[in-house]
Amino acid sequence: MSHMDFQVLASDGAARRGVMRFPRGEVETPAFMPVGTYGTVKTMTPEELSGLGAQILLGNTFHLMLRPGTEVIRAHGSLHEFMHWPYPILTDSGGFQVWSLADKRRISEEGVRFASPVDGSQVFLSPEDAIRVQHELGADVIMQFDECTPHPASRQQVADSMQLSLRWAARCVAAHGDHPSALFGIVQGGMDAELRLESLQGLLALPLDGIALGGLSVGESEAERLSVLDAVMPSMPIDRPRYLMGVGKPEDLVAAVCRGVDMFDCVLPTRNGRTGYIFTRFGMVKIKQAAHSSETAPIDPACGCYTCRNYSRAYLRHLYRCDEILGHRLCTLHNLYYYLELMAGLRAAISAGELAAFVAAFEATRAAGDPVLAT
Amino acid sequence: MSHMDFQVLASDGAARRGVMRFPRGEVETPAFMPVGTYGTVKTMTPEELSGLGAQILLGNTFHLMLRPGTEVIRAHGSLHEFMHWPYPILTDSGGFQVWSLADKRRISEEGVRFASPVDGSQVFLSPEDAIRVQHELGADVIMQFDECTPHPASRQQVADSMQLSLRWAARCVAAHGDHPSALFGIVQGGMDAELRLESLQGLLALPLDGIALGGLSVGESEAERLSVLDAVMPSMPIDRPRYLMGVGKPEDLVAAVCRGVDMFDCVLPTRNGRTGYIFTRFGMVKIKQAAHSSETAPIDPACGCYTCRNYSRAYLRHLYRCDEILGHRLCTLHNLYYYLELMAGLRAAISAGELAAFVAAFEATRAAGDPVLAT
Repeated sequence: MSHMDFQVLASDGAARRGVMRFPRGEVETPAFMPVGTYGTVKTMTPEELSGLGAQILLGNTFHLMLRPGTEVIRAHGSLHEFMHWPYPILTDSGGFQVWSLADKRRISEEGVRFASPVDGSQVFLSPEDAIRVQHELGADVIMQFDECTPHPASRQQVADSMQLSLRWAARCVAAHGDHPSALFGIVQGGMDAELRLESLQGLLALPLDGIALGGLSVGESEAERLSVLDAVMPSMPIDRPRYLMGVGKPEDLVAAVCRGVDMFDCVLPTRNGRTGYIFTRFGMVKIKQAAHSSETAPIDPACGCYTCRNYSRAYLRHLYRCDEILGHRLCTLHNLYYYLELMAGLRAAISAGELAAFVAAFEATRAAGDPVLAT
Repeated sequence: MSHMDFQVLASDGAARRGVMRFPRGEVETPAFMPVGTYGTVKTMTPEELSGLGAQILLGNTFHLMLRPGTEVIRAHGSLHEFMHWPYPILTDSGGFQVWSLADKRRISEEGVRFASPVDGSQVFLSPEDAIRVQHELGADVIMQFDECTPHPASRQQVADSMQLSLRWAARCVAAHGDHPSALFGIVQGGMDAELRLESLQGLLALPLDGIALGGLSVGESEAERLSVLDAVMPSMPIDRPRYLMGVGKPEDLVAAVCRGVDMFDCVLPTRNGRTGYIFTRFGMVKIKQAAHSSETAPIDPACGCYTCRNYSRAYLRHLYRCDEILGHRLCTLHNLYYYLELMAGLRAAISAGELAAFVAAFEATRAAGDPVLAT
């Protein structure tokens, strides 16, 4: 069995608060995992991330195997030593990235052949390869290799793709053997409730340490995504972490936590931070807008992050106008603070049995609008 | 008189160790001032800068008056509050930047008219304007408005330009009045020792708080620059800080300190950091080179900076290949650490009367070559 221990500490309706324990540290759930594609959460140091409350990061197997390659990382020990992050890391399997290459990849039963976006060379990735690479990276949680089903697709296409992912899951389990890292399976099945449940049942026959929902954030509507969650979550095992991959906006996270999801990753807080789109309690602040040009108030006067404690909107807007890296840093930091504080708030609300009130206050404040521009 | 107090604490040959005291803090000299063109030392937070030992920053009047404009900064109090740097700031006068606009500017006795590089609008800057803008920025040390003499130029051109800067110096003194910030004059005169001394004598007739050497780092040879220093420095007043503007490489700083210079600014450590050119005890490391691709050693195993304590060359090279902002941060931080440590070493050597030995060891190590690549 894996070195991961998962325990549910409290629940409120379908929502759960828990803790994942690894030799490298604890992860409180529901957890948000900042994305460190190339072995760095863009603009941030590891000390800054742990200072914000991040307890686990996500690394992208696909990117790291191409640059710098696993040999370079192994020369340092593992991805942790390479990037100076001593706490747990989850790596994806590369399936989603391969899928996003579209016509530059060819999928077969054996695996996926694709042209490297770095140098155009032909690369082959099988379920066994994906597990081996993740072992080489030294991740604490590794993901099965799966096919991300396109959307929209015919029922037959979705069923075939889901079955392929299931067969790949069994090969990943075999390749994983008794390796001490945790292995998660990925539920596929498009927007079809029946196929999703069939996928989940197939995975539950395998010795997996956690279950993820994949194939979402692929262009579906919010209603479609929630209907998949509503169909699948009640059948999820209660004793293992449930991970909703690649989702999403603050509202999406809150809705998923209420349905029993324990783990999230998303590039939104970091990517939007670099482009000046800032998440706040009261909605989005677009820092490049001229309305902020002389505004001495911070992004959110009630926010406790380093950026809001020390810098005005006018200063941040100025940094973006001048394309200054410090602007990217400060807004990324604020966005991650907001996401991680939101998760901490959800955890506390679940423990207190006050999740409904927390969600109502969250939604009301998010809809209230920017109090600084209003004055 | 200004609120600045300057005291020489020790000397070793022509070199001096001293301290400048301002209401906002002390600055130990010889001092290196990181350059914060647009109200940010590129990639760095103020806390990181003071953590490295920076005690004073340089801000660029020309850039800040165009973006974000002094009204925005004044709405925050001063440049210090705007950029969250509570310690002393020196602002240049804009003369060098106007000069670098080349054919987009027209110089007259009254001042300089130029096209804004931001939006093309016509801007006029006189000595009085430059002082007013620097007062508005709230700088602790402000610089006279001067003309940076082109190089090469005829003796007559150099003399005319130097005389214009002298007349502008007198106008700056008048415009400054009894303002509490310190006002520095700027010695011009090209590479001509006689004109340089004439410029210095002219400035010494004015109530200036410090004397700068301008018009260097304009394409002259090292020998030309040192000959100017050798001509001028012995005639500099001993009771006021001497500032060599815009210079330079570590060797240039050491040579100038030995000749009695107290203050420096230069974009080299920050600009080179962002392009992967790294200053070390043993010379330059070009982090993008393939030689570093699997190197688990840090840039300099003997360096105490955050970057060298925690990251390998392979990781830094990887960040540059992937154009990751963290790479720019980490190498900028190392370069500034190196410059500020070098200044601290020079100060200690002057106090101990061991400057010659310090310089000999500095030069020998810089010439020794990279010990990591050698193994």
